[in-house]
Amino acid sequence: MYTVNANYQELQGSYLFSTIAKKVAAYKEAHPGCSIISLGIGDVTQPLPDAVIKALHSAVDEMADVSTFRGYAPDLGYSFLREAIAENDYRARGCEIGADEIFVSDGAKSDSANIQELFGAEDIIAVCDPVYPVYLDSNVMAGRAGKYDPAAGRYTRVVYMPCTKENGFIATPPEKAPDIIYLCFPNNPTGAAADKERLQEWVDYAVKNGCVIIYDAAYEAYISEENVPHSIYECDGARQCAIELRSFSKNAGFTGLRLAFTVVPKDLVKDGVSLHGMWARRHGTKYNGAPYIVQRAGEACYTPEGKAQIRDLIGFYMENARIIREGVVSLGYEAFGGVNSPYVWLKTPEGVSSWDFFDSLLDRCNIVGTPGCGFGPSGEGYFRLTAFGDKDATKEAVMRITKI
Amino acid sequence: MYTVNANYQELQGSYLFSTIAKKVAAYKEAHPGCSIISLGIGDVTQPLPDAVIKALHSAVDEMADVSTFRGYAPDLGYSFLREAIAENDYRARGCEIGADEIFVSDGAKSDSANIQELFGAEDIIAVCDPVYPVYLDSNVMAGRAGKYDPAAGRYTRVVYMPCTKENGFIATPPEKAPDIIYLCFPNNPTGAAADKERLQEWVDYAVKNGCVIIYDAAYEAYISEENVPHSIYECDGARQCAIELRSFSKNAGFTGLRLAFTVVPKDLVKDGVSLHGMWARRHGTKYNGAPYIVQRAGEACYTPEGKAQIRDLIGFYMENARIIREGVVSLGYEAFGGVNSPYVWLKTPEGVSSWDFFDSLLDRCNIVGTPGCGFGPSGEGYFRLTAFGDKDATKEAVMRITKI
Repeated sequence: MYTVNANYQELQGSYLFSTIAKKVAAYKEAHPGCSIISLGIGDVTQPLPDAVIKALHSAVDEMADVSTFRGYAPDLGYSFLREAIAENDYRARGCEIGADEIFVSDGAKSDSANIQELFGAEDIIAVCDPVYPVYLDSNVMAGRAGKYDPAAGRYTRVVYMPCTKENGFIATPPEKAPDIIYLCFPNNPTGAAADKERLQEWVDYAVKNGCVIIYDAAYEAYISEENVPHSIYECDGARQCAIELRSFSKNAGFTGLRLAFTVVPKDLVKDGVSLHGMWARRHGTKYNGAPYIVQRAGEACYTPEGKAQIRDLIGFYMENARIIREGVVSLGYEAFGGVNSPYVWLKTPEGVSSWDFFDSLLDRCNIVGTPGCGFGPSGEGYFRLTAFGDKDATKEAVMRITKI
Repeated sequence: MYTVNANYQELQGSYLFSTIAKKVAAYKEAHPGCSIISLGIGDVTQPLPDAVIKALHSAVDEMADVSTFRGYAPDLGYSFLREAIAENDYRARGCEIGADEIFVSDGAKSDSANIQELFGAEDIIAVCDPVYPVYLDSNVMAGRAGKYDPAAGRYTRVVYMPCTKENGFIATPPEKAPDIIYLCFPNNPTGAAADKERLQEWVDYAVKNGCVIIYDAAYEAYISEENVPHSIYECDGARQCAIELRSFSKNAGFTGLRLAFTVVPKDLVKDGVSLHGMWARRHGTKYNGAPYIVQRAGEACYTPEGKAQIRDLIGFYMENARIIREGVVSLGYEAFGGVNSPYVWLKTPEGVSSWDFFDSLLDRCNIVGTPGCGFGPSGEGYFRLTAFGDKDATKEAVMRITKI
């Protein structure tokens, strides 16, 4: 008689986006003909860069000919892509990361969910609060989070690191060291980015306490400030303590194409066991490589044309972010992010909850955003606006807010 | 201080293909200019069908235009593909499987490795011997297999079901029922396929004993005999006990394109917990959907042109299988498979081990195959030949064997 994995029963339903959808639907029904603009979109909206489209067509043609057809890809990724990544994302920034330390995959979501498999079942994880929910949920599924305490809104075995206005939305290292630390900079949802000094503090802390850092840098392409590291390997000692997750989703718009990579340095060795070797074994056993045509598309992102086109894409979204941020600040709101990330994180007025603010924005301006409390208890009193929309709609949205 | 997942240390190295590569390299060095033919290839070699190529180009063009661009796919797959699968692979065969019971993924390897996550950590698994190694290895990583016993060549908590000439390579249900049963028909490596009666026995056994069957039907397109089911859902009661894994790799040649699906029927409920709901939650948390362009390629496989082109592809490989099988049988070897699968499973002569046969085939005919013992202890004394090669090379290979 088989049994089911009881840890899944500890997962909490994610009602955030379904609640939003229901509220919007109800509003539309009560107000036929209203024109609602969404600043809640977490997905890119602009087409793939031309260099990527050309690479895809060319690779598809290769698959049509017996002499150039490609079957199974190498488990860890084609070397043409791993070399391009190592050269452009690491060596060019002075980081010592070899092509053979890069593992190509189908998405940073998969990698950020799967990476916990490498660690002991009893290890204690620490997550930022608020944060992208996958880090926590994947650990709940593995039984590492303990029980859910509804009164506290938290799991009993998880260390929550509040990220608020007071600490500049950069978590402070806990007094008692956890085992596995998830960090995401630039951050979703707060838009905060750790500067070199703050990140180096984290690396020093991890090395000193024997922690591993899972560093999610999916939004690194949005960094505009000089002193913000694009990779954790810009910090001394990171090769001994950190795994880095990267993605082609938010820079080149691959959310529907699926391509990402994870860096596991060979220096990451615990009691004689190489995490690089373990991750390679996991890839070999549970994964069969990203599609050849998509890996060629990824390679095209590193050509001069690809780089220029990606800069334009990022510029497009960041101009939206600027419009949103300046618009809400000019109205007297406190707003954060939007400088090194496509997310603007707005403090709701004193005494107004995240959901109250959602309701009033919908009702008075016909604008949809995302209540901060949906990303964790410390997100209460905040609200996320995203820059992935159409430019005219973004301008119109800000105009509506300023007209209240 | 983090720890590592100690279960990974129980994994046994897979030396099969690296040992083969070393032996071949050594032979080539000793015999410069020799022309070696491989009948060991487990990957397709023919280009993608024209209908698939057209669908890919068309979908790539959609990604280049803001009005048709697609971002994140639905976690469980686009409905255009799920509907096509439900209609063609199930309803057309009289199986009651709904589109919402189909989960699109990037590969049957991923699915067959990940599916064990749904079950209790103490559940006992049963695997065929010999068999595709992923079922076992993914359970070793999860700690479900127990310790490896080098003397027996087996894990202590795993039920091995020998598949030999004596039982027609169809495993017999164990006396003491395990919890999770992995079956693969048509089988890799033996090429055996269970007929309707034998498969119905398995379903009845699973229902009676409260087991779940993980049914890998990745090779169903190669079935040529009438009484061999293409899906386990052709059997009564399978909706209550079976999960089915399918793939586009070996029918349409998607090994380098990555597309597969898993069926989890809504009737699969354990103590009030729906496995369908659990798998949906896993997809939603740990996966972000297969690429849009690849899902359009999958859809093209179900068009009249796509179906005809896939029939031709399968026909091409099965003609190779026939040539191999008839060739070795005419020489007096006992050979199995090659009728409902692209694999021919040859019995080595009395007293000749799998590796001895490998050496002699390489030395006397310059042909490379795969020793059966590499797929499990009961594969000793057998040898796998595959039909995925070039036709002329396959003919030449058989000619060489017959000339000994």
